[in-house]
Amino acid sequence: MKLPDVQADRPDITVDLSRVGVSGLKKHVKLAREQNDPVILISEFDMSINLPSYRKGANLSRNLEAMNTVLERAIDEPVVEIESLCAEVAKEILDRHEYGKKAFVSMESEYAVEREAPVSNQKSQEVIEIFAEAVATEEEVSNKVGARVKGTTTCPCAQEIMAEKIRESLSEKDLSKEEIDDLLDRIPIATHNQRGVGTISIKVPEEYFVPIERLVEIIKDSMSSEIFEILKREDEAHVVEEAFDNPTFVEDVVRSMVSDVVKDFSHLPDKAVVNAKQVNKESIHSHDAFAEVKSCLGDLRQEMSN
Amino acid sequence: MKLPDVQADRPDITVDLSRVGVSGLKKHVKLAREQNDPVILISEFDMSINLPSYRKGANLSRNLEAMNTVLERAIDEPVVEIESLCAEVAKEILDRHEYGKKAFVSMESEYAVEREAPVSNQKSQEVIEIFAEAVATEEEVSNKVGARVKGTTTCPCAQEIMAEKIRESLSEKDLSKEEIDDLLDRIPIATHNQRGVGTISIKVPEEYFVPIERLVEIIKDSMSSEIFEILKREDEAHVVEEAFDNPTFVEDVVRSMVSDVVKDFSHLPDKAVVNAKQVNKESIHSHDAFAEVKSCLGDLRQEMSN
Amino acid sequence: MKLPDVQADRPDITVDLSRVGVSGLKKHVKLAREQNDPVILISEFDMSINLPSYRKGANLSRNLEAMNTVLERAIDEPVVEIESLCAEVAKEILDRHEYGKKAFVSMESEYAVEREAPVSNQKSQEVIEIFAEAVATEEEVSNKVGARVKGTTTCPCAQEIMAEKIRESLSEKDLSKEEIDDLLDRIPIATHNQRGVGTISIKVPEEYFVPIERLVEIIKDSMSSEIFEILKREDEAHVVEEAFDNPTFVEDVVRSMVSDVVKDFSHLPDKAVVNAKQVNKESIHSHDAFAEVKSCLGDLRQEMSN
Amino acid sequence: MKLPDVQADRPDITVDLSRVGVSGLKKHVKLAREQNDPVILISEFDMSINLPSYRKGANLSRNLEAMNTVLERAIDEPVVEIESLCAEVAKEILDRHEYGKKAFVSMESEYAVEREAPVSNQKSQEVIEIFAEAVATEEEVSNKVGARVKGTTTCPCAQEIMAEKIRESLSEKDLSKEEIDDLLDRIPIATHNQRGVGTISIKVPEEYFVPIERLVEIIKDSMSSEIFEILKREDEAHVVEEAFDNPTFVEDVVRSMVSDVVKDFSHLPDKAVVNAKQVNKESIHSHDAFAEVKSCLGDLRQEMSN
Repeated sequence: MKLPDVQADRPDITVDLSRVGVSGLKKHVKLAREQNDPVILISEFDMSINLPSYRKGANLSRNLEAMNTVLERAIDEPVVEIESLCAEVAKEILDRHEYGKKAFVSMESEYAVEREAPVSNQKSQEVIEIFAEAVATEEEVSNKVGARVKGTTTCPCAQEIMAEKIRESLSEKDLSKEEIDDLLDRIPIATHNQRGVGTISIKVPEEYFVPIERLVEIIKDSMSSEIFEILKREDEAHVVEEAFDNPTFVEDVVRSMVSDVVKDFSHLPDKAVVNAKQVNKESIHSHDAFAEVKSCLGDLRQEMSN
Repeated sequence: MKLPDVQADRPDITVDLSRVGVSGLKKHVKLAREQNDPVILISEFDMSINLPSYRKGANLSRNLEAMNTVLERAIDEPVVEIESLCAEVAKEILDRHEYGKKAFVSMESEYAVEREAPVSNQKSQEVIEIFAEAVATEEEVSNKVGARVKGTTTCPCAQEIMAEKIRESLSEKDLSKEEIDDLLDRIPIATHNQRGVGTISIKVPEEYFVPIERLVEIIKDSMSSEIFEILKREDEAHVVEEAFDNPTFVEDVVRSMVSDVVKDFSHLPDKAVVNAKQVNKESIHSHDAFAEVKSCLGDLRQEMSN
Repeated sequence: MKLPDVQADRPDITVDLSRVGVSGLKKHVKLAREQNDPVILISEFDMSINLPSYRKGANLSRNLEAMNTVLERAIDEPVVEIESLCAEVAKEILDRHEYGKKAFVSMESEYAVEREAPVSNQKSQEVIEIFAEAVATEEEVSNKVGARVKGTTTCPCAQEIMAEKIRESLSEKDLSKEEIDDLLDRIPIATHNQRGVGTISIKVPEEYFVPIERLVEIIKDSMSSEIFEILKREDEAHVVEEAFDNPTFVEDVVRSMVSDVVKDFSHLPDKAVVNAKQVNKESIHSHDAFAEVKSCLGDLRQEMSN
Repeated sequence: MKLPDVQADRPDITVDLSRVGVSGLKKHVKLAREQNDPVILISEFDMSINLPSYRKGANLSRNLEAMNTVLERAIDEPVVEIESLCAEVAKEILDRHEYGKKAFVSMESEYAVEREAPVSNQKSQEVIEIFAEAVATEEEVSNKVGARVKGTTTCPCAQEIMAEKIRESLSEKDLSKEEIDDLLDRIPIATHNQRGVGTISIKVPEEYFVPIERLVEIIKDSMSSEIFEILKREDEAHVVEEAFDNPTFVEDVVRSMVSDVVKDFSHLPDKAVVNAKQVNKESIHSHDAFAEVKSCLGDLRQEMSN
């Protein structure tokens, strides 16, 4: 018995659809690597293709077959890396839909990184969020790669206010301005601090490579201090001192990220699109504070050189 | 004692920030209405402003004051409606940041609508999601308004396959093709169906008004059947019959939405941006299926007239 | 045509079910009040009833009708309060299922409270989470009522370590121990702080009343400082000073909550069940820290009196 | 410099705490296996210990060290399985807190299973949720293990109503009751169906083993039909036919789960606690329907033998 192909019918309303596909697809991803253990992740994917006005439906199972074909290939070939996975799948989807002109694939995943506590050197792990998004047409394939990492931030404004108040309090004690300044230099000044979440993504043509681990490092370096899974007492003291020595607004964190991206990614083209965002889970408010830059790398290069 | 204004300092890295603000702010919103009871909602807001390169920080508390000013006004003046709230706040934020050129406000909320079951007419409620997003500059204020509504969809493809299988099975019984067709006409043919979630948003200059309740109706009409809080047995039969009489792919639902938007919103300008999306929580897969149109109204009008 | 009642059939497998019902039901709740404006909330409900082994299915629409009956009554009668709503619905559900012996209703909601900044007295709001859970049998109705509130906590351990380090650093400066102690008394000592979330619930027979607003106050008082929607600079200084003067572990916060509950709820019976929990969104870790007490009030009274 | 140990102080309020610990800890878990590839997962853990009234704080970093010790051991020893991981960690935590008497560890994770489409045999995957919870005291260690799996369910009530309506419609056509019954036997009768989520957990003393994969199979078998990642047209027809041949209420699904658990786990003791729950993401309502059994195995055995 031949089963009917309803998707190939002409629809009543002939409007082009921007995208048709599947979302929330969880996949066990295993990627071979040249000399290391394979990377193994459970990732969530959205995969879609445009649909021309003359066709009632898209063949959604082809998207899933495209994904599985790429994943099977990735087990054997160390060439497919987590950074290029979405682009590979998007190209495969485009190939399999003769009526489609533009394929979209996005991914969210968690990724474990080995770490060491800053003083005790105790080994621990950090699980960060990574994401990617590829768009494939016959002409070009763009690939966005990003990471989201937690850290801590201390507020420069409240710290300045506290310093002012300490100065006032100490001046009652017959100390000179120099003595007070010297004292304040030796003391980490109190201020509110909080958990912060930094995100950087960069969108480039697929022939350029953006290493996720470099994005993770830039995000960590931009907050007041890194944070850790395990902190013994001496580590905790170190983190607090570092954080209170480096107060940062959300604005400062984003600008630091942008500055490092401009310095480190000199091999990327001007049209690369950079998105850097910092969200502070404010400890003195119920809501969050955030700052964000979304700009092409060429413009950021120019701003930085001014 | 004068407290320092650290935000006004010059930053070390002088890069423009696209937006700086607060997110996840929950507010109790009360809107006066000409003749009806006031609308009362708890909504979640993001509010932000661009920050020029020469300024270290934005004054975030001004965003919150802007919000509260508008909300106080809204209690007295029936002119502020849920559809225009974000635009009002965005303008107020722009006014309060002398260094800012572009203010952004977005909102997510829940909204209750009175309903009646289709046969028993039993009264019930439906809580839908609504959202809005405004961008204000000195030159113009754009306002996006949207709604997200659940319904049910039945699959046309599986229904055709089932019809084919029934035809084959009945043909063994010495029935003519006409008799079989007549039988099939009297029977709702089985197929998988599922909970679907439809979303429409329209972005327009603030002087145009997009009534949320009309978006809700269009979404409901585009799926195989509406769904209800309370269904007595006779209502349940009605919903099932209607759903199985109107099989729809995600693609069909989106095209129906677009078609209704083009018909109903003839007063909107060509540059209005329409985003229509349908997500089916597939009952035969763990993942979802979706279709989406994002296009300006002018282009959709042209496609529909072809 | 008479429609079949499949639920009333005998099932193949005759096992008692602990509960059968609906979950994730969103309702617009409006409660009349003696002299004030009505309270209006959108709440999410679960409602269920036990099912004896001899019955195939429960009549789920009766749960929804029970809810609507109570909500209609609540619009007119100021007697139904948010604290007693679940108990009222549970009793109504029990009444409507002749085969059921135990009805369960739970609710989650958001609730807005008016607030004032601590120094500037600027008016703002706070949206807190409230929840309730009632179980009704013929013999008794129990009612659990709770609230979840955000605040800030400063770490006593890191603060002691920082004080030790400051002492060491100042001792190089030829200051006496007394002079150093006097200095440290005048300075808020730096330590990591973070957003904390406190929760208290109390389960009592329905004839006892547990006012949600009192739970909210106890939670606020137990953390290092309250937090606010809007803080002008002078308010921010006040919050930071208060927080750094009152360092608290998650353990301290829970013990303070328990202590206040024992003091304030002397009218409740010994068998009242108290659950107090504090979660700190650690600013120096990716994970959270938490402490929890779950105990009957009688035992807590005895521990407190030791 | 010796750093102070504030946690060891005596607190102001001397109340026992039920548990103190860390939550939301994400860990990369790698488990060796006798003959297969290791299992690799990213899991989320909560880990806590009771705290006696005389101690101000618990040493939280010891929980993390306990976890890491067990995970390192699990890389080398195929004996540690995903089912016993929480129990191993709970025992290690108890060992490391000389002041603690009861340790708690819980885990949530995703787990990928290889699958085949029912007709085409096309290979695909399924990612399911698994969870575990262990409580360790000196006397005993209890271990709860569970799985959560999606499937599809068709409604028996609406199907009976539809059959009745078809009977009425066909009776106008001069067909005998026998002819109508024969026709209805050959036709899958339409009814609403939906995505369902089944969960089973079993809590036992740690010396008993509950294989997660057996729980997954029982859940799958209890719904109207399994669901799949990839379905070609012939597979889709098969799933729809199977689902419409096996209509099930949430109540039926739970009873089927319980029945299979009683049959398959004859080696478990009567005091094993079984929790079986089915949630249907209703396609004709915005809310969900659910049924649940929570009972000890001994009681279920007795009910089943009646």
